[in-house]
Amino acid sequence: MTRSLGHLPDMTRYRALIEYDGTNFYGFQRQREGFPTIQGELESALSQLARKPVMITGAGRTDSGVHALGQVVSFTIEWRHTVAALNRALNANLPSDITALDVEETSPDFHPRYDARRRAYRYLIYNAPVRSPLRRLHSWHVRQSLDLDAMNEAARPLIGVHDFVTFGLPPQGDNTVRELVKAHWSRHGEFLEFDVEANAFLYRMVRSLVGSLVAVGTQSWRVDDFAAAFFACDRNRSAAAAPPQGLYLASITY
Amino acid sequence: MTRSLGHLPDMTRYRALIEYDGTNFYGFQRQREGFPTIQGELESALSQLARKPVMITGAGRTDSGVHALGQVVSFTIEWRHTVAALNRALNANLPSDITALDVEETSPDFHPRYDARRRAYRYLIYNAPVRSPLRRLHSWHVRQSLDLDAMNEAARPLIGVHDFVTFGLPPQGDNTVRELVKAHWSRHGEFLEFDVEANAFLYRMVRSLVGSLVAVGTQSWRVDDFAAAFFACDRNRSAAAAPPQGLYLASITY
Repeated sequence: MTRSLGHLPDMTRYRALIEYDGTNFYGFQRQREGFPTIQGELESALSQLARKPVMITGAGRTDSGVHALGQVVSFTIEWRHTVAALNRALNANLPSDITALDVEETSPDFHPRYDARRRAYRYLIYNAPVRSPLRRLHSWHVRQSLDLDAMNEAARPLIGVHDFVTFGLPPQGDNTVRELVKAHWSRHGEFLEFDVEANAFLYRMVRSLVGSLVAVGTQSWRVDDFAAAFFACDRNRSAAAAPPQGLYLASITY
Repeated sequence: MTRSLGHLPDMTRYRALIEYDGTNFYGFQRQREGFPTIQGELESALSQLARKPVMITGAGRTDSGVHALGQVVSFTIEWRHTVAALNRALNANLPSDITALDVEETSPDFHPRYDARRRAYRYLIYNAPVRSPLRRLHSWHVRQSLDLDAMNEAARPLIGVHDFVTFGLPPQGDNTVRELVKAHWSRHGEFLEFDVEANAFLYRMVRSLVGSLVAVGTQSWRVDDFAAAFFACDRNRSAAAAPPQGLYLASITY
């Protein structure tokens, strides 16, 4: 329909897969001047390419210090070259702590958040007696030994459709029921990895889950204490949230 | 002997194993005010504990941006508590990008540089078409595919006692002959690791070796070109040095 108007520019909608190191940003979502964010940097880079303001939409609003291996964003711009050239030009305009791993054309009505069917997060714990300078920005250092089997036993009842209010609040006061399809700990040398996947997450949910499961791992909580907190559906029953630097938005499934 | 004087403090010499993230430092060696260094931070932390100036000696003087998994330093202080308490107190006074992994008592004449028999370095390459924000400070991003077999073939003649002047200059104008006992590339997913060990290294030697071996890996150089440069014993025949952020001082053997 708009094409028949002739004089309108040829706008195309793109979808980009983004990796970032969240260390030096005030989270994903745009903030006021002087507070760098992932969204702000991406919009600034794209606006330079388009020579006019470009807005982006992201699949997930990660907090300050949280990283992404596979954030998905979309935007609509006029671009007269190949999509590979758009990917390169975007990366050339981005700071080194944000990168578009891939850019592709998508349908005009694609929405990275509303269209997402599942989100996967990963949480990384560096489990060793002494802190590691080289790992400090990309994992949570836990000194005490952790009982991996107990942590997996506690995590198992999370799978399925449940009210997760103990572990987080909804973004807009709507309901707190989510469907978890994965919640699993694995050990890789001195690292513990928590892989968790759901249709959607509540605010702070992964970090609250990790904090509470680590309480089980250090034997501050029994597996039963974790279950009781979960089924109490009471936000005050969560252990303290794990810190942001161990958290990664891993992938989005559409 | 000094003990018979009675009034002299009970000074002990310690040896510490240090990990650091070199990103935010102007190298190991102390510089003037306003230029933070590993040595400066360690001396400042120890001087606070001792309540008087403490000097340290390190096994290797790493450049700006270079990391360490196992730097060795030594110092002499008066300490009235356990060596484990000294380790904890030292870490409590250090910034999070430097950590003492271990502290032990050593003999009064121990010298971390003169007494070292072998040094091992590791160099990490992130070999993928697109840069990685999460790896940018701890590896060198090489876009082109790399021929690992050719790189190992070129590295093999390095083993043994040779003049390494093509790849570096000596710290104090003395001779440029060193004995290399290991020089091996291995692949771990998207990472290439170069493990190299010698009795001692010339200034910039590992980074010049890596730069020249990567020239072989990308087929800018043939294996024979590398050998010719090496045996020419001419500092101008090295390829450009690889950047500092991929280099780690891995371990020191006494």
